[in-house]
Amino acid sequence: MSVLASPDQLASARAARAAYREGLAEPTSGVAPGLTQANLIAVPADWAFETLLYAQRNPKPCPVIDVIEQGAVESALAPGSDIRTDIGAYRIWRDGELVSEQTDARDAWEEHPDLVAFLIGCSFTFETGLVEAGIPIRHQELGRNVPMYRTNIDCTPAGRLRGELVVSMRPIPAGRVADAVQISGRTPAVHGAPVHVGDAASLGIADLSRPDFGDAPELRDGEVPVFWACGVTPQAAIMASKPPFAVTHAPGFMFITDVPDAEYIV
Amino acid sequence: MSVLASPDQLASARAARAAYREGLAEPTSGVAPGLTQANLIAVPADWAFETLLYAQRNPKPCPVIDVIEQGAVESALAPGSDIRTDIGAYRIWRDGELVSEQTDARDAWEEHPDLVAFLIGCSFTFETGLVEAGIPIRHQELGRNVPMYRTNIDCTPAGRLRGELVVSMRPIPAGRVADAVQISGRTPAVHGAPVHVGDAASLGIADLSRPDFGDAPELRDGEVPVFWACGVTPQAAIMASKPPFAVTHAPGFMFITDVPDAEYIV
Repeated sequence: MSVLASPDQLASARAARAAYREGLAEPTSGVAPGLTQANLIAVPADWAFETLLYAQRNPKPCPVIDVIEQGAVESALAPGSDIRTDIGAYRIWRDGELVSEQTDARDAWEEHPDLVAFLIGCSFTFETGLVEAGIPIRHQELGRNVPMYRTNIDCTPAGRLRGELVVSMRPIPAGRVADAVQISGRTPAVHGAPVHVGDAASLGIADLSRPDFGDAPELRDGEVPVFWACGVTPQAAIMASKPPFAVTHAPGFMFITDVPDAEYIV
Repeated sequence: MSVLASPDQLASARAARAAYREGLAEPTSGVAPGLTQANLIAVPADWAFETLLYAQRNPKPCPVIDVIEQGAVESALAPGSDIRTDIGAYRIWRDGELVSEQTDARDAWEEHPDLVAFLIGCSFTFETGLVEAGIPIRHQELGRNVPMYRTNIDCTPAGRLRGELVVSMRPIPAGRVADAVQISGRTPAVHGAPVHVGDAASLGIADLSRPDFGDAPELRDGEVPVFWACGVTPQAAIMASKPPFAVTHAPGFMFITDVPDAEYIV
């Protein structure tokens, strides 16, 4: 499909990217509603094939929606954008260690002009569909970041890259779980259907109230924890695989594209 | 999903691969029914990133379902397989020219031990769904290969790789076109919904009766030509981009996997 954004949507996306470029550091949940947001992982060219292969082998957590080749900084999904500046908060990684969080990554591209940047689909895309179907998204209601957890499930390795699956969790009323599965399943290019429903322990998650990324959840009576593959999974791969250098977004601070979520609905 | 093949299906897939390994050269339409078949493109390691990127940017014609890294010859989709021998007919390409068709490609891997092989989804997968819905597949009825055409639509380039989209065509009764769109749309990982319905001229196809690959079609009264993105598209990219060396399957002679078609239904 080629779904076109409305002029209002495009204006809000461009205004948001411009604000982040000027230094604003705010989570992007609810920003430019209806437009696709993306996770970022950028690696030196020597690691690019393995990164793309890791994504191909683990498409649920790592659905690549754009690749910005070495020497380029503009995403095809957002004309006029600059991947070095247009995200609210970046993370800089050296040898698998998080060494800096910053609102601008131009120094990273100066140090490594051969960086190849991968944009990976984000679960915010299917959250739009859930909300439209009357399924409440708790972390949105609470103004929090979605809770994310490292699991005991290994992704399929690719060359030097390995790491565990990271999932996001949303409490869903038991009577709406099937709907949530079907609605998110219609966007297979952006995480798709849940990977797991109901039992945190079998994913190796000891305590739902202590997520590895994002904010603590609030699980109410009659709700089931539903787990989706998460675009923070590449950051777990960086921690486990220790490439010499990498740049990512900070969880919750996504790259905003000009592409409507509807583009990814089958 | 993780859909498992039946013992009978696995036996037929293994028997077919063994027969091709022994030298049998027959098209694979109808072989090991219900199991996914795949297109092959193998390139030297130096071209692997661009090939995977070309596939990522052109997912409808080039849906990658497995990558066999340099030094390996077994597909994860078919334990015990050997990508050098288990296809009925291979094509060897040098500088963009088809120089040989042969039933065994071990000499190619001997000459280029760094070949990286990409398996790409095949429209046979959704044909199963069409037949089950009572939509006749003409080329199957006639015992012919599906007709395939080079179009005037350029794929999105990736590095040194460029080329036009290749489509396959099936005549569909006008009253079933919508069904055919919806059924094939349920397998977005293997070409998905048609790219075009009804007007060959707007794709730059001058004469439907003279396909660029495969056999001539038979279009009957009340039928509409429906065009799907085709896994032969990488061969058009080889012709246009002239990598020094490449190996592909011969159109219609696919790699048979152990994975049920249902695995790719959303």
